Amino acid sequence: MTTSASTALLTDRYELTMIDAALADGTADRRCVFEVFARRLPTGRRYGVLAGTGRLLEAIADFRFGEQELDWLREQSVVSEQTLAYLADYRFRGSITGYAEGELYFPGSPLLVVDATFADGVILETLILSILNYDSAVAAAASRMTSAAGDRPCLEMGSRRAHEAAAVAAARATAVAGFSATSNLEAGRRYGLRTIGTAAHAFTLLHDDERSAFVSQVASAGPGTTLLVDTYDVEQGVITAVDAAGTALGAVRLDSGDLLTVAREVREQLDGLGATGTRIVVSSDLDEYAIAALAVAPVDSYGVGTSVVTGSGAPTCGMVYKLVLREGSDGHMHAVAKASAGGKSSVGGHKVAGRRIEHGLATEEVVVLSPDSDVPALHQIAEVDELRPLHVPLVVDGVVDPTYTGAEGVRRAAERHAASRLELPRAAWRLSAGDAAIPTEIITV
Amino acid sequence: MTTSASTALLTDRYELTMIDAALADGTADRRCVFEVFARRLPTGRRYGVLAGTGRLLEAIADFRFGEQELDWLREQSVVSEQTLAYLADYRFRGSITGYAEGELYFPGSPLLVVDATFADGVILETLILSILNYDSAVAAAASRMTSAAGDRPCLEMGSRRAHEAAAVAAARATAVAGFSATSNLEAGRRYGLRTIGTAAHAFTLLHDDERSAFVSQVASAGPGTTLLVDTYDVEQGVITAVDAAGTALGAVRLDSGDLLTVAREVREQLDGLGATGTRIVVSSDLDEYAIAALAVAPVDSYGVGTSVVTGSGAPTCGMVYKLVLREGSDGHMHAVAKASAGGKSSVGGHKVAGRRIEHGLATEEVVVLSPDSDVPALHQIAEVDELRPLHVPLVVDGVVDPTYTGAEGVRRAAERHAASRLELPRAAWRLSAGDAAIPTEIITV
Repeated sequence: MTTSASTALLTDRYELTMIDAALADGTADRRCVFEVFARRLPTGRRYGVLAGTGRLLEAIADFRFGEQELDWLREQSVVSEQTLAYLADYRFRGSITGYAEGELYFPGSPLLVVDATFADGVILETLILSILNYDSAVAAAASRMTSAAGDRPCLEMGSRRAHEAAAVAAARATAVAGFSATSNLEAGRRYGLRTIGTAAHAFTLLHDDERSAFVSQVASAGPGTTLLVDTYDVEQGVITAVDAAGTALGAVRLDSGDLLTVAREVREQLDGLGATGTRIVVSSDLDEYAIAALAVAPVDSYGVGTSVVTGSGAPTCGMVYKLVLREGSDGHMHAVAKASAGGKSSVGGHKVAGRRIEHGLATEEVVVLSPDSDVPALHQIAEVDELRPLHVPLVVDGVVDPTYTGAEGVRRAAERHAASRLELPRAAWRLSAGDAAIPTEIITV
Repeated sequence: MTTSASTALLTDRYELTMIDAALADGTADRRCVFEVFARRLPTGRRYGVLAGTGRLLEAIADFRFGEQELDWLREQSVVSEQTLAYLADYRFRGSITGYAEGELYFPGSPLLVVDATFADGVILETLILSILNYDSAVAAAASRMTSAAGDRPCLEMGSRRAHEAAAVAAARATAVAGFSATSNLEAGRRYGLRTIGTAAHAFTLLHDDERSAFVSQVASAGPGTTLLVDTYDVEQGVITAVDAAGTALGAVRLDSGDLLTVAREVREQLDGLGATGTRIVVSSDLDEYAIAALAVAPVDSYGVGTSVVTGSGAPTCGMVYKLVLREGSDGHMHAVAKASAGGKSSVGGHKVAGRRIEHGLATEEVVVLSPDSDVPALHQIAEVDELRPLHVPLVVDGVVDPTYTGAEGVRRAAERHAASRLELPRAAWRLSAGDAAIPTEIITV
């Protein structure tokens, strides 16, 4: 499961047919700059959260065509023998800069800038967008939940509501946005996340009575475990739980009913039984709004499932991957863009970005555009006071920076996210629908 | 990529901790029946579509714990040595019956019935739900699109808007619901689906002018290819396309703008140029409503992306996996169910289902319940006139029926779906919000 597998066919057929034609006509080696950006945020959202970068860097390293992949492409006559030979040797040799994982973004933010030959760069389009669009959708929802939860931990429990591999990525993305733990074991193993979970209603129902189930669980997991007390009657469940585990019982979980009311009753009951240190975990269709509404309830942590893994109403981001600059037959670099129609236009040219920070608060996203130039303008950002540079080198001449991958990558991304969110004006934390928290300004140099 | 990898850690931690306690207290071997069902359909939907069964059967066959998985569980102290030994030997030895893949379902339909020991059955909960919830969400959306499209083919192009592995499953699920082809290469390889795709705007932008791009594409792919004509000016693009490919040009694709108007203009233009056989493919944020609105436009096929892979507003199904019957300490089987609270109740007992068909049309979902009995009531369905039995054996004593897996499984599921949808009263095909197309009746025998 953890062994590297080829990611090369996780792509759209047209990437390969474009390379096929470009290799034949001699344009495949033209130097190109591709950019990932989102034209807009989901309706009402005030900021986006970039996530998935670490996974993407791992996937790019695995992006090689093996015998099996090549045989299938040949058998299906997808591309010519010339192209098969190119694919057989493929490894990404270009460079990628981008926003650090966990960073916030706004409409037009140049999230990833891929500098490579046309063939080397275009082939990654689908993989890049699949990973960033899904992971960022989950992280954006998760960030609203952790901000609504304040100091109380959020626990990710949504695996069953997402594709089984997406569930692992979702758990990772929630960690980027401040979740404390996940129920998903593979995510725990792969990214060093803390895993949690004790028992479902089925465990209580399996036993002849609730007491037998609780006694068994405490015997196996110790009194510090979390007992699920709402299979039959909550009030009786709490009595039985404290009876079975003693007042050292770690926590009780409530997974149904009117959580606000029930949590209060259970807290009072636990305190009355002397279990004053026993925590209350709630779960049951929680989203950021339900979490906010439970702020006044004596709840210790939130288990979140469906809504976080499906992006809480925005299950994907609208990120696109566009060619913005390319070498022409004249050997010079030229800014390029699709003509406007139905809101699908883009801005050609190589871009770098910085966030203007005044008195510790973000006020503007500044995108510096160098049209018709292949000179990165990164230094121009660094020279401007109050602009925090947003682009970092992720891949240099085909070599991935490993500090953005694996468990270390997730830790760094979570730190980046927390720090960047603190820079936002407080209005940006509101859950109600609003505009992007800060405007994006494009400066042409 | 196609090699089997362990799916064993794609699960929630609590499945393993429940087994840990049950092995210690002697209940792990109790015979249990688990049931998958959905309490409701997404708001306004008239039917659900079961998809993912074939993938699930493949995943169950791969559900083995290897050295790496066991080492990690030991290192993390997730379970005891006794449980590790159980997991090391694990393979699913129980039996599963269920609705055939592609079948329609309604609230309360007993979609999957797992008959196994507690430990053997409970461990599959997360995997079963992850696969069925995602794939069925995509299939349900896809079915609305193919019914809106009528005889015109729907093409799946949404990989970039879904997790990269979910994208493969999504392509498969759309095929179950009648899509004709997919852009996703891995889905093509794994499930024998037809793959499609020619070029993106980047290919045109790469070249010095549109004409060079079209000439190159035709040279590489032949005149039967599909040329994307909306990078600059559509009218000029069509002229250039026919000029480059001749009147034998296969198709033009429109990916932006007001498709209804533009398709009419382009059809007229193509016919005027003598390219009367050249088809028009449209794509650009299509969903079932946009497809329906384009019924009057001279469009030949629909490319669908974001909306289908995200379930068109319902990105997951609410399917749950509940223990409904289990052996007690008395050696007898007992129906069990969580007490009602907040709509989370379920109906205990082993169930089988049939659909009442009158004059060729479905009128009712009939669920036959045998409480406190371990005798399957399948024969009782078969004996009733006009009831089409819905349950088929999928796994018998640990042996998977291979005809439901792989490419054959997808073909059979697509046939099942088409036939079942034809049985629905025509009102069920409407896209507007409504109730479940037929009621579900539970009969206790």
